[in-house]
Formats: sequence, C-alpha cells, structure tokens
Amino acid sequence: MSDLPKRVRILEEGPREGFQIEKGPITTARKIELIDSLSETGLEQIQVTSFVNPQAVPGMADAEEVARGFKRKEGVRYTGLWLNDKGLERAIATQKLDIKGSLSLTASEKFLLRNQRRTLAQNVEAVRGIISMFKHYNVPINRGSVMAAFGCNFEGDMPTSKVLEMVQQLLDLAAEADIKIEVLSLADTMAWATPGGIHRVVGAVRNKYPELELSLHLHDTRGMGIANAYAGMQMGVKIFDAAVAGLGGCPFASHSGASGNVCTEDLVFMCHEMGIETGIDLEKIIASGLLAEDIVGHPLPGSVMKGGSLDKLRQKVAADMQK
Amino acid sequence: MSDLPKRVRILEEGPREGFQIEKGPITTARKIELIDSLSETGLEQIQVTSFVNPQAVPGMADAEEVARGFKRKEGVRYTGLWLNDKGLERAIATQKLDIKGSLSLTASEKFLLRNQRRTLAQNVEAVRGIISMFKHYNVPINRGSVMAAFGCNFEGDMPTSKVLEMVQQLLDLAAEADIKIEVLSLADTMAWATPGGIHRVVGAVRNKYPELELSLHLHDTRGMGIANAYAGMQMGVKIFDAAVAGLGGCPFASHSGASGNVCTEDLVFMCHEMGIETGIDLEKIIASGLLAEDIVGHPLPGSVMKGGSLDKLRQKVAADMQK
Repeated sequence: MSDLPKRVRILEEGPREGFQIEKGPITTARKIELIDSLSETGLEQIQVTSFVNPQAVPGMADAEEVARGFKRKEGVRYTGLWLNDKGLERAIATQKLDIKGSLSLTASEKFLLRNQRRTLAQNVEAVRGIISMFKHYNVPINRGSVMAAFGCNFEGDMPTSKVLEMVQQLLDLAAEADIKIEVLSLADTMAWATPGGIHRVVGAVRNKYPELELSLHLHDTRGMGIANAYAGMQMGVKIFDAAVAGLGGCPFASHSGASGNVCTEDLVFMCHEMGIETGIDLEKIIASGLLAEDIVGHPLPGSVMKGGSLDKLRQKVAADMQK
Repeated sequence: MSDLPKRVRILEEGPREGFQIEKGPITTARKIELIDSLSETGLEQIQVTSFVNPQAVPGMADAEEVARGFKRKEGVRYTGLWLNDKGLERAIATQKLDIKGSLSLTASEKFLLRNQRRTLAQNVEAVRGIISMFKHYNVPINRGSVMAAFGCNFEGDMPTSKVLEMVQQLLDLAAEADIKIEVLSLADTMAWATPGGIHRVVGAVRNKYPELELSLHLHDTRGMGIANAYAGMQMGVKIFDAAVAGLGGCPFASHSGASGNVCTEDLVFMCHEMGIETGIDLEKIIASGLLAEDIVGHPLPGSVMKGGSLDKLRQKVAADMQK
C-alpha cells in the first residue's frame, strides 16, 4: 500500500471552477448560498470567485458582489483567482479574501500560444511581471504550479523531463526574486493523466525535489480523477484541489457533459473509508453537493451524493441490531 | 507500482446489467443492435441477457428473442444469466449461448434473507442443488463468486475472515462434487469497496489461495469503480466485469441516478494508457457506449465517451505537425 498519508488537505474550487462554465445565469445570492454552505463543512480553503474580465467571462462579472456577500467563517481561508494587476487589485479591494500569490508555468507552449498568446520564453517574462506585481502589493508567495503537466490536447504527451524543466524554471524564477516555493502544484489541466502517469511524474518530481510539498489539481474528464488521486496519495501527495459535486466541466472535452474537477465529496469519502483524515464532514459536503446541483439546475457528476455515504448505512445497520 | 498485469480480460455485462434496470421499454431490436455493436469491439465475452422470471423483471421478458436475434461473432463468448433450472433450460434451448456454470455464495446473510429468502445454511443447500442442475445438463463449472465481499447495506462492513470462510465453503462444495474452481470472482455488490478494501480482501484471498485466478465485479455507485479496478490490478487481478457506458444503475443506491457497473471503455482507456493490453478497440467501444446512451435515451455515466480518447488527440497533434 506504499506510503498513504494519514491526513490530506482538500482545497475547494467549486464556486470558481463551477460557476464560470455554467451557461444559465446563476444569481449572486445562490453563489453566496453555496459558499456559505461550504464554509460549514470543515473545508480549510474555498476559492470563491474569479476576478477576470467580465466581458470574457460574464458568469464572473459579480465577483465583487459574491466576495461582499458571503459570511467569513473563522478558520477558513477564502481565495480568489486573478490573472493580472487589475484582477489582483479588485481582489484586494474586497478586503474579504486571503490574498496569497502563486507562480504558474505551463509545460505546453502550444497551449500557452493558444490560450495566452505567449511563447514559453514570453511566459517566463510574464511570471517575472507577476512576481513584481505581488511584491508591489506585499502579497506573500509560497506556491508554484505547472499546468498541462501530464499532457496537452495541442502538444500531446508531456515528457517527464519537460515537467522537471518547468519546475526548475519556477524555482529559478523564485530564487532570483528571493522567494521560496514551498508547495508545488502539478495540474492535469486537460485530463491526460492515468495512475501510471501520476506515478511517473510525481515520482520524478519527488525524487528530484524532495523538499517540495506536492499538490495535485486533477480533472475528471476521462473518469480517472479518483484513481489519479489515489495514485497520488500512494506517492505521498497530501494536497488536492477538488470541486464540490464535481462542478466544473471541461472546455477541452470532445463532447459536452464531460466532468470537471475531481469531486470533493467523492474524494473525502475515499479518504475517510481508508482511514485518511480530511477534517471535512462528509454528510455536510454531500448536502453542499446537492445544493450545487439544485443551483445549476442539472445533474452534476458527483457519485457519493447520489450513492449515499456508507456511515449512514452503518448507522442504520447498528440501529436495526438494537431492535 | 507493484505487479500490474501486462494484459487484463474485461468481460462485458452491459446488455444484461443495463437493460434490466431501465424503466423505459427498450425494443428487442435495439438490444440486439447494441450486442452486435459490442461484438465488433474485440471483447472476448458479452453477457447478452437474463433468463429470469418475466413477471419479476419485465425488461428481460424478451430474453429468447434477444438470443435468437444477435449475430454470433467468431471468437466471442456469449453468456446469459439464470437463477434456477427453468432459466438454465431456457438458456440452453436458445442453442446460441456459451453455457458455463458458476457457483455463487453471498457473504451477507441479511442480504440473502432479503433477496432470496434463504439463510447462509439454506444457501449452501441451494448451491448443492445448482451443482446437480449443472451436472444434469452437462454444464462445465470452473468459476465461483462471493457476493457482498466488501460490505453490505443490511449487514455493514464485511470482515475479511467472513470472505475467506465463504471462499473455503465454495471450494469445499466444489470438491465434494468433484469440481475444480479455477476463477474466483469477488463482487462489490453494493459498492462498499475503496482501494484500501480491495487491497485488504484481494490480498487476503490471494495469500490463502494463490492458485485461484481472481476476478473483480465492481459497482461504481460511489465513484470508486476505476480506482478499485486500479487497486485490483496492483494486487495482480487480471479479470474484470464491466458494463459499456457504465450501464446498470444500482437498486441499492440512496438516490436515483447512481452509476452501475464500472464502465467498460473507461477501464479500457486506463489500461491502454498504462500499457496494459485488453484486446478491445477503444474507439469502437466508445461508439458502442454512445449507442447505448442513444438506446436508453438518457445520459449514462461513462466518462471517456464524453471526454474523448487521447489517441484521437495524439493523431491530431501528429497531423498538425506534418502541416
């Protein structure tokens, strides 16, 4: 069973990953309702919204209102996403979020060219700009991420050597700015990973950089999310991004209806059943998942919210034995 | 990465598991269409129908017509399900199926009492009757299975010792009838397994009975199907039941819409991506999955049929490089 962790940290991205992709207009009040529900589950971190161009992502035009509206719960970190100065300024201006910086490189140049119109070299310059921006606003930075670390729809399989090169580049960029990257996230941006790929890439990064705490950002587009998370845990990974009810979808899937991020409550379920702590209340996160489904108005991919928890069945079995 | 097999055998149960649970009437012609489509995918075995009481399972009332209608493809085994003499006689009478016997015990007495109104002891007697029945019809028997091997909604967690006891009982029953059980299937009938449970139970059975070839029948009700299959492969399991598009549903789930069997094409995808052969053509089985969805008239849980294969993307990447 290799070295499964005793506890894993599951960071919620549903409100951001989920609502940006939904077609139907979702009212600000309902977005806030989901965040407030998630706050009660024991989650340590919730990404609540995205401060991006409202013209490009109309579903996120109410970012400020969402930030203003939700109730902060003691002990929970609330984060936001931004891609530039303007977004960061908007996030800071809410005075409601936990502002932390992260540096991101993408392993695939073709993906970069397509999505951000930058070469790998131009992207390195962009990261230097982002570091300056964070420094200007006194935002602490301790996290880096490599996107498309397992493969890319436009470039194909990603060689392990390329991922290692990106990690080194991130560390070099951090070092030249006197920053220490402590957590490194490997993102399966376009759902190319299977457990074999997780073992290969995580193994290589862990061997070369044993001091880095690794984190996985997994998409479930091809149904591998939970198996990949399990493979990650076998490799000692203890931090996972996830989305309640599997909110998210995938703009790169070949058919509509493909799943988004790995589902929070399914991951919590697996962990608890295997004796791995998460600090999250499974029944409460299932309730949040059902709420998310009600909010988007169509079935979401999460499984445990449909299949039900085993602890409920265990309680019923125990109650029946008392009769 | 422990001892992953070089090749796994995936046995298709979609037409039987899937159509018995669908509410809408599905025409015999369309059931046959799916079987004929599956025959072209490289699958070695397809369970085509169930010879059960048409009053109890109206969706299977056309079992004979289905058997009569599909085209046998050379090299493919076509199986059916039956629960008693009458069903077996009906299956034999079709003269179209590969009739092989299997002995089944259930680890949970409460499940047995509920579903078959038998105690564990009565069930042992029933298996003796089934052996006589198979012998009477000259049906070869080389397979045994233990249902509810990972837990039961009515009895709770299943102790490993109980599963081992059931396996021993099966082997004893076989021995007293001069039969040799070569393949043992462990069924997660009510979706209680997580990878930890797979390691525990498969490990214990493999240690005690190293001569038995193990097989897993996994349900995906709580989203663990693919992760459990992966854990099984890590333990050396090389035979898996599966259902195209994840057809099947689960009568024991707490909410409707829960997934059924682990999805054939998702499992094929994971295997191929990890260099494990299946003999199945992924694009063809994806096409069968989309056909199954068209036939049932509602979304099915399979992921790869929505997310698309990676080989198609690889081909596109290669073609783009030629430009």
